Amino acid sequence: MNKKLFIILFALSISILMQAQENLRFGEVREIISPEIHADNSVTFRLQAPNATNVEVQGDFTAEKAQMTKNANGIWSYTTTPLPSELYTYSFVADGLQMNDPNNVHYRRDVASTLNVLLVPNGQADLYRVNNVPHGTVARRWYNSPGNNKMRRITIYTPPGYEESNEKYPVLYLLHGMGGDEEAWITLGRASQVLDNLIAQGKAKPMIVVMSNGNVAQEAAPGESSLGFYKPVFNLPNTMDGKFEETFIDILHFVDNSYRTIPEKSGRAIAGLSMGGFHSLHISHFYPNTFDYIGLFSAAIRPRDASLSKVYQDIEGGLKRQMENGFQLYWIAMGKEDFLFQTNIDFRELLDGMNFPYVYRESEGGHTWRNWRIYLGEFVSMLFK
Amino acid sequence: MNKKLFIILFALSISILMQAQENLRFGEVREIISPEIHADNSVTFRLQAPNATNVEVQGDFTAEKAQMTKNANGIWSYTTTPLPSELYTYSFVADGLQMNDPNNVHYRRDVASTLNVLLVPNGQADLYRVNNVPHGTVARRWYNSPGNNKMRRITIYTPPGYEESNEKYPVLYLLHGMGGDEEAWITLGRASQVLDNLIAQGKAKPMIVVMSNGNVAQEAAPGESSLGFYKPVFNLPNTMDGKFEETFIDILHFVDNSYRTIPEKSGRAIAGLSMGGFHSLHISHFYPNTFDYIGLFSAAIRPRDASLSKVYQDIEGGLKRQMENGFQLYWIAMGKEDFLFQTNIDFRELLDGMNFPYVYRESEGGHTWRNWRIYLGEFVSMLFK
Repeated sequence: MNKKLFIILFALSISILMQAQENLRFGEVREIISPEIHADNSVTFRLQAPNATNVEVQGDFTAEKAQMTKNANGIWSYTTTPLPSELYTYSFVADGLQMNDPNNVHYRRDVASTLNVLLVPNGQADLYRVNNVPHGTVARRWYNSPGNNKMRRITIYTPPGYEESNEKYPVLYLLHGMGGDEEAWITLGRASQVLDNLIAQGKAKPMIVVMSNGNVAQEAAPGESSLGFYKPVFNLPNTMDGKFEETFIDILHFVDNSYRTIPEKSGRAIAGLSMGGFHSLHISHFYPNTFDYIGLFSAAIRPRDASLSKVYQDIEGGLKRQMENGFQLYWIAMGKEDFLFQTNIDFRELLDGMNFPYVYRESEGGHTWRNWRIYLGEFVSMLFK
Repeated sequence: MNKKLFIILFALSISILMQAQENLRFGEVREIISPEIHADNSVTFRLQAPNATNVEVQGDFTAEKAQMTKNANGIWSYTTTPLPSELYTYSFVADGLQMNDPNNVHYRRDVASTLNVLLVPNGQADLYRVNNVPHGTVARRWYNSPGNNKMRRITIYTPPGYEESNEKYPVLYLLHGMGGDEEAWITLGRASQVLDNLIAQGKAKPMIVVMSNGNVAQEAAPGESSLGFYKPVFNLPNTMDGKFEETFIDILHFVDNSYRTIPEKSGRAIAGLSMGGFHSLHISHFYPNTFDYIGLFSAAIRPRDASLSKVYQDIEGGLKRQMENGFQLYWIAMGKEDFLFQTNIDFRELLDGMNFPYVYRESEGGHTWRNWRIYLGEFVSMLFK
């Protein structure tokens, strides 16, 4: 066995390996950095498109598409003004065709749209970063839902130290909006980073976070079920007809039987955004002695007209029972520009008329993940104290 | 409280909601289905690009780019011949610009390249589908690596029934190739689907699968560490210099202390692709009485010239100790077109000269995920029996 030959073969192998990997596209783009975040929080976007006649960049950092300019090498670029610290999404438009940034491998899916992400640090978005702090575990599991006659996928965050301890932990049930699923709070909501960071800062108690799928017609998020790699749709059946609320008991049973929880009201919180706020509202009065902390983030309020579910037959009676049983916090968060703003005014009037105690948090902006991430951080900081 | 008003407001809200979600791009693309898989396993790709003058589709189902044709609505399309059942990746090229399919939200990242995926069923790829079978749990965790002086991210599959049982389970340590990380076997390798399906068919024993990160300079995959959303590179430091092998004991300790394992040779397998095959080779002789099953998939063999690690100082001596201690299976899998083919011939000559027992599996094709998924299915079917 000639050792030198081996070494030569190996060195050769590595150099071939670097060209041979299937479907990789280093070559033409490897020296392009996009997005590039500068020290002052301005951002440069770049796209190599020598044949294009017009390239723009669009994203939630700008109200209008921004015109990019081409250099002699066919690389289009645009630099923003300094941006507020935030987690942004963006895409390019090349000759009218929307496309992702081939130099940014970091994406988030929102319903049927997949956009690049970009984190501008030194402010609010530091809460959404992976920092050098202890990290919790994120597990994708399947639980049995007898009420829906199927196994369903669920995402569970357990806090740092959970596995090494024998303690019992409180649980936050965290629910997504319409078009979302059990991936939404992890990917778009940065829930595991928000929890890791706030726990490390001593601002949140260590807690389990349960991110269920509120679309009971689904087993799992698109691509994660036996339906295969299909195209997601916004409007699914059986999302706001009472079935999720009725069968939420399956999730409570699964969690209390599978984790070291505090299986009583003092150890349970429930919150959600938009449709998930609607679910939190109705689950918490349908199981009226189950949750000490309730969070409605940009919540829808009223059921669809056609639903005959028992969940919605006596909403005011349910709220009254919930109030009589008592709870620690009923938190209603809403952006000034949210299209559900007036609906929530009406809901708060109903609560006021019942002397139902709640805390109202009004923010700038509207029906956006930016607001929901902020609400999540504020809400978890108030729990289980 | 006017109930009718609420219902009207709510109905209005939903219709506004459907237009108001930020950054969604239903509108122009909602009726386009791409890819569309037909009953005969031919596939139609579509892209709405009325301004483009030329659009092609490229992917690992075709050796050459395929020319798409434009209809009167500006939608380009191309239909393949019936394709063998497989998990494919693809992208479009519009006027020379590579772009992803905006109608397919399903992606896989391979190093710095993010491509759409497509599963053609009724054959080999049924092993990679989510089927209606019991599903294991996939957890992303962080373990302490004293040898690398950092916390490191790791992906762990536990089989269906693990959480409800008190049994001890065997463990497969499954290692990625160069440019990969702790996400590679789950996303590109479909490891959890392969295990779920083979366990359900009775072809594989229920086992824990540990997918570690072999790049000891990294805490975690790109985007999952404190380095933020950076652009991945292929050639990382400290990947084949002995450090991963030396500190693999940290992973063994973590797994045996954190899971109900069979903490002895009979309950341990190790396998990997390319660099991960190299790691499996050297870990298994460096800890020469630790693994009963060893799998080298398209493996690199020899260390880099410059490494002075003790791991590589006496490879033949290590292999001899491993052989004397005994093991159940040493499995070498290689594609006929793999650039490491000759290197593996030389390695097998070395083993033959030592009377080192191994099983050789030669396949068609080369250094591809297609082969590594096939090898994974075959290898796990032979373990712990």
